Amino acid sequence: MSSEGLFIVLEGVDGSGKTTLARGLAERLASEGADVRLTAEPTDGRIGTLLREGITDDPRAEALLFAADRACHTAEIGRLLEEGVTVICDRYYASTLAYQAAAGATDIGWLRAVNSGVIRRPDATLLLDADPDACSGRIDSRGERSRFESTEYQKRVRENYLRIAAEDGFSIIDAGRSPEEVLDDAWHIINGLRDRNASVRGDIL
Amino acid sequence: MSSEGLFIVLEGVDGSGKTTLARGLAERLASEGADVRLTAEPTDGRIGTLLREGITDDPRAEALLFAADRACHTAEIGRLLEEGVTVICDRYYASTLAYQAAAGATDIGWLRAVNSGVIRRPDATLLLDADPDACSGRIDSRGERSRFESTEYQKRVRENYLRIAAEDGFSIIDAGRSPEEVLDDAWHIINGLRDRNASVRGDIL
Repeated sequence: MSSEGLFIVLEGVDGSGKTTLARGLAERLASEGADVRLTAEPTDGRIGTLLREGITDDPRAEALLFAADRACHTAEIGRLLEEGVTVICDRYYASTLAYQAAAGATDIGWLRAVNSGVIRRPDATLLLDADPDACSGRIDSRGERSRFESTEYQKRVRENYLRIAAEDGFSIIDAGRSPEEVLDDAWHIINGLRDRNASVRGDIL
Repeated sequence: MSSEGLFIVLEGVDGSGKTTLARGLAERLASEGADVRLTAEPTDGRIGTLLREGITDDPRAEALLFAADRACHTAEIGRLLEEGVTVICDRYYASTLAYQAAAGATDIGWLRAVNSGVIRRPDATLLLDADPDACSGRIDSRGERSRFESTEYQKRVRENYLRIAAEDGFSIIDAGRSPEEVLDDAWHIINGLRDRNASVRGDIL
């Protein structure tokens, strides 16, 4: 029986601890023998690179470029999952929805329609939910403040994330705690998923 | 009273004579004192340039890049029209719909949804309709055969164009005639549009 990898997405405002969690999850999964790959959006591909360089100021063009980058990313994720690799992805379609809609220049319905053609349903999306006021200190200490990182803006992003999470069935994790506690919560969710998948496949019967 | 320019789009399979018609129309309009600008897709902007270079093989990513390029193009067209410039545009959203759907990897419903967010309704879209068998000779003589130019593919593109033209109310011009006859037909349509617009604005009352 084929054993496809798990597709796990981490979402959350900047500074919510996604990168730390991704590494922690990858280490635990690898220690149990899983083949794990970390990916992120925008990707390191050609379109993702242009996005990082800020190729356009037009918000709709930018949203479409994110989706174009995602189309290539989704194809790559599909190849990895078929090889049995577990993919942990730092940001996916919900980032475009939450951020671009918070910027106010595009509506979420159109963003959903655009993205519907380029995404694959994750096995789990973990939303690291945190108060942007708390996160902003973390970002300041890293000295990486971008145009997306004003606190008011991050608050709108958070509201959008919570709405999308309710609509799309994300798991919400309280990110206002220690990295160890966040990792334990996430591990609990991922383990439930692995047990369920194994059971469906008959591996443990 | 403000006098906004006309927004005219030319569509058709490769070799159907769009470029010749665009120049002919521009000359006639200019000879009557109109300020005319020719534009084309993909544009000469950063995203359009990447498309011409073939930045991706993923058909959905490519469709999204065309739409991103179009978002910037539409903004530029809007600025020109507000200045009273008449814009003649060689290819617009119907090209993405007709070509990408003919390639078979994307469905026209999704392409319409994507493009709905980035387009402006043209005052007129003229579809230069021609038998691809006849056009293919014209392309061969130019020595510019691309992957989009096999005759079977062009036939599917033509069918899509005719369907879109019926749905979106394009004017269909028989392009299997001399450039002069095609220009006369197009001029007749554009003149009707100018008279109607002038009447609505009260310029000739």
